[in-house]
Amino acid sequence: MSDIRYDVIGIGNAIVDILGRCDDAFLAKHDAPKGNMRLVDAPTIDTLYNDMGPAVEISGGSAANTLVGVSSFGGKAAFIGKVAGDEFGKIFAHDIRAAGVEFNSKAVDGKDPTSRSLILVTPDGERTMNTYLGISTDIDNGEVDPDAIKAARIVYLEGYLFDRPDAKAAFGEAVEIAKTAGRKVALSLSDGFCVDRHRAEFLELIHYGVDILFANEEEITSLYETSDFEEAAKKITSATELAALTRGAKGSVVISKGERIEIPVEPVEELVDTTGAGDLYAAGFLYGVAAGKDFATAGRLGSIAAAEIISHMGARPQTKLVELAQQKGVSL
Amino acid sequence: MSDIRYDVIGIGNAIVDILGRCDDAFLAKHDAPKGNMRLVDAPTIDTLYNDMGPAVEISGGSAANTLVGVSSFGGKAAFIGKVAGDEFGKIFAHDIRAAGVEFNSKAVDGKDPTSRSLILVTPDGERTMNTYLGISTDIDNGEVDPDAIKAARIVYLEGYLFDRPDAKAAFGEAVEIAKTAGRKVALSLSDGFCVDRHRAEFLELIHYGVDILFANEEEITSLYETSDFEEAAKKITSATELAALTRGAKGSVVISKGERIEIPVEPVEELVDTTGAGDLYAAGFLYGVAAGKDFATAGRLGSIAAAEIISHMGARPQTKLVELAQQKGVSL
Repeated sequence: MSDIRYDVIGIGNAIVDILGRCDDAFLAKHDAPKGNMRLVDAPTIDTLYNDMGPAVEISGGSAANTLVGVSSFGGKAAFIGKVAGDEFGKIFAHDIRAAGVEFNSKAVDGKDPTSRSLILVTPDGERTMNTYLGISTDIDNGEVDPDAIKAARIVYLEGYLFDRPDAKAAFGEAVEIAKTAGRKVALSLSDGFCVDRHRAEFLELIHYGVDILFANEEEITSLYETSDFEEAAKKITSATELAALTRGAKGSVVISKGERIEIPVEPVEELVDTTGAGDLYAAGFLYGVAAGKDFATAGRLGSIAAAEIISHMGARPQTKLVELAQQKGVSL
Repeated sequence: MSDIRYDVIGIGNAIVDILGRCDDAFLAKHDAPKGNMRLVDAPTIDTLYNDMGPAVEISGGSAANTLVGVSSFGGKAAFIGKVAGDEFGKIFAHDIRAAGVEFNSKAVDGKDPTSRSLILVTPDGERTMNTYLGISTDIDNGEVDPDAIKAARIVYLEGYLFDRPDAKAAFGEAVEIAKTAGRKVALSLSDGFCVDRHRAEFLELIHYGVDILFANEEEITSLYETSDFEEAAKKITSATELAALTRGAKGSVVISKGERIEIPVEPVEELVDTTGAGDLYAAGFLYGVAAGKDFATAGRLGSIAAAEIISHMGARPQTKLVELAQQKGVSL
């Protein structure tokens, strides 16, 4: 595999997060589903923004956060996603490149603005997302550079992108290219509601082409329409080669060909904001797999990265994850 | 004083901060004076931004930060400052209003963009600012609403605005209105280099019309062109009624008509970023004075607010300062 240039290449929504604090009553007043992501139109995001408290702007996007994490572990990462030429687009492009992730997608002008997500963090640290997609789902087949896909050990797909048909088509193409070239395909189910919107297609993609699946408890049980995590975990065993299932404070479960590994959470002094916990878990796990670590170590790296991200506002690491892992006795 | 609507009204630069971390070598490479503020032009700020690491965007501006702090203590505050109609202008306007500060200045379109400050935070927590002023100094006399000035117990002026003649003229007008109406005038010297650029005019304004002066050690010694803090402190005693001089980790000194009160710093678990330390000290002190507290208590409120702001990135409080003060046994 001498033509490998990246550990992980990802396709996802290019989003700038606008993070603020609120109480549960504010979520209820605005019909925002606590702990989940909902799509909103431009007038709704404006109303919410006007009504919410002071905010900070930090680059986000699920797969983008993951790739920044991979880079922070010392891995080579690239991102495919769409921004406009506006200020938020410039912020997104700057931050992901400055984090060492290759980002060659050109900004699209004169159509929709760059995607924003209003993320409301409640006193319990839970985040509720209100996303205006804007230009970010404007990914079609032309966007997916076959050479870049072939040059990555793992192609990582963000489930959120299923919310637009063109992007879904681009996914299909990326999966074909990756499989033909003998690369691994990883998928994140992203969100319980997102799974609910696209269950049949997710199942088809998982059975056909996904080598590594990421899901949290809500997503995997939604996928198999059960309330029983163990039942869902059993079903995913026969559907995919490798699955990493995150369970919040209960840690995570890695399932590989019938083998099951329980990974504990990494202790956190103060839970500030859960935004990006799943994204950064995926970063650690993918980096570990790409680097040839055993799955227990890969899971541990996921836990370490998730613990870092929930200790502060925003979904981009504030500490070099490679150093953090070394401090915790994991040699990379 | 039945027509009082505000505890403090402030005039200053309306700025969005772009905060990132760097090492001392990065500052040296870019000729950025550590711990100070320098003005940069558009190409310079672009070069710096391209070269710096990932950043977060948080509303800032020295006087604006102070007014948000006053509001967070439960005081009534208003801000006069200029933004453009661009995304950064919208962010600034949203954040200051969402923090409870009245902000009626209209956005100016088609001229310069909203002001940005690239703030580079070194591992020691020190901040170095690189400010592109843009539209923010476009304040002329027309901007200063006499009724609003008369309606405030204290008019607070940000020394940084001296960097443009029109803004300076607006200052003069605000001082006249305030003094005629029997209100207090407060001034922050803002920055050692800023004092150096405008020493004579600062001295004139202080002697003529300033009732409350804020300065740090570097600024007050620069004002009197001495390296001896005690000498500078002595000189300011005869020049103004009340001065609050901050000395970093050494705490602050409040000087009022010959009386000198030493205020210790409030302990901080971890010094993360000094951005806004002086601004928030001023917030606590001004709120205390406006609320009729003695100067020792006003100084303590300043220390409490400064300690909150240096414990995280950015110059806007993340905790309700009124609650923080109460937790620390100061009843407001």
